[in-house]
Amino acid sequence: MSIETLTIVGVGLIGGSLGLAAKQRRVAARVIGVGRQQRSLDQARAVGAIDEGVLDLAAGARPADLIVFCTPVDRIADQVLEAAPHCRPGTLLTDAGSTKAGLVQAIVSRLPGHVAFVGSHPLAGSEKRGPVYADADLFEGRLTIVTRTSRTDEPALARTRHFWESVGARVKIMAPEAHDQALARTSHLPHLAASALAGILPAADAELTATGFRDCTRIAAGDPELWTAIFLQNRAAVLAALETLERQLDRFRQALQTSDATALTELLAQAKKVRDALGT
Amino acid sequence: MSIETLTIVGVGLIGGSLGLAAKQRRVAARVIGVGRQQRSLDQARAVGAIDEGVLDLAAGARPADLIVFCTPVDRIADQVLEAAPHCRPGTLLTDAGSTKAGLVQAIVSRLPGHVAFVGSHPLAGSEKRGPVYADADLFEGRLTIVTRTSRTDEPALARTRHFWESVGARVKIMAPEAHDQALARTSHLPHLAASALAGILPAADAELTATGFRDCTRIAAGDPELWTAIFLQNRAAVLAALETLERQLDRFRQALQTSDATALTELLAQAKKVRDALGT
Repeated sequence: MSIETLTIVGVGLIGGSLGLAAKQRRVAARVIGVGRQQRSLDQARAVGAIDEGVLDLAAGARPADLIVFCTPVDRIADQVLEAAPHCRPGTLLTDAGSTKAGLVQAIVSRLPGHVAFVGSHPLAGSEKRGPVYADADLFEGRLTIVTRTSRTDEPALARTRHFWESVGARVKIMAPEAHDQALARTSHLPHLAASALAGILPAADAELTATGFRDCTRIAAGDPELWTAIFLQNRAAVLAALETLERQLDRFRQALQTSDATALTELLAQAKKVRDALGT
Repeated sequence: MSIETLTIVGVGLIGGSLGLAAKQRRVAARVIGVGRQQRSLDQARAVGAIDEGVLDLAAGARPADLIVFCTPVDRIADQVLEAAPHCRPGTLLTDAGSTKAGLVQAIVSRLPGHVAFVGSHPLAGSEKRGPVYADADLFEGRLTIVTRTSRTDEPALARTRHFWESVGARVKIMAPEAHDQALARTSHLPHLAASALAGILPAADAELTATGFRDCTRIAAGDPELWTAIFLQNRAAVLAALETLERQLDRFRQALQTSDATALTELLAQAKKVRDALGT
């Protein structure tokens, strides 16, 4: 048992799953959940994700050895800076946000010296929300990115890595900017494209959709406000990724316009090769 | 048992599943498979999808009461016209092709008067190929489009509907052109977009993909030549659908460029509403 008190801020799908994983794997002796609504805290406690729930961030921060912020990306920096003054010396703060550069930058320059912050992003989740969907194995075998900058405290980085590994994740260290650029391509752009595809579907066509359409638009069911925050936090990289997609769609369009079967087959074969390599 | 001899041309995933479904539900007393490779026919017979396999289309056509063409869309019209002269009077020919207008038009003007052709498209399948993936329940509860034109023989249409219903499908009657326009939006454009997304993924990003990327690019693993044929058969409708997608991506781009959170949330919320209505 390496952690006496783990505090999780935001007990939704990710925070709830983290609490469950930490408790079931005996990673923390006590898990405190911090939430804005008593109902979410009650649900999180009911599913066994937390031992106690508090509405006050300072109250949750005070006893913590480790705090993980699992709130929307546009709130994490403010909450970290709000919690930090209440923490005991040596407390480690990390997060589960989908973007990293802006958030890490906003935090490190203003963080009190008695605590450490290291950015994290577990590549796990789903379009579902809330602690009722919490899953103790959500992080099992999944990758978590932990970010390092020139100012990162190495012991704090090692503790962060150890924590994610102890809930089942594999860990990869990246610079915040490299993380954001890659995730724009692997997560944010796909979400945008899936939403665009779903958004243009005429209502009368709904009954004519099959597994293919459902698979490729599933993520469009994600929370619009959460994703707006992610897009805006990672605006430049998402715009760059979108431009790359638009160029690729242009290649398809030109091949279609000229009925160029060879070009179409090449575009499709190259995509298939990439997709096949990812597995099911 | 309404059919004495059912002949299935093309014993891949769709043809093999159709044979299995017809045999298990006792829809046909005998199922003949027609293929180009002895190996596929042997596999189809091994999984119980057909009773016998023949390499010669005429030999498969001669004894048939019903022939279903489950071959790539760019081969169906030629094969129907090649098989028709060998058929007994009253034989019904239908297909499982993903496009309908060009194919139906090519067939009806040249079909001998002693047989009838009705176009069909079961909205079922997967990115997998071959009779080893055949599934007797592939059509269960799924929609099959059966096409009607001004020249369609109504008793033949009724027999076609009855056949698909007898293997578990629900049936919807549509004009071939309306089918192609709708499927461009619900199937062909999503395939194109998924392939574009997969195609632009840098190799180094592969490890940073999670469930979302995998879901929304799954169909990009489909067969490149099959999909080239589908795109070219339905070129105008796919180009029109692509233009609609490009306009929607433009709306996202403008909202991102101006950091317009309200516009982004509206675009995402509208997409979520459409996607939520489709179910899982």
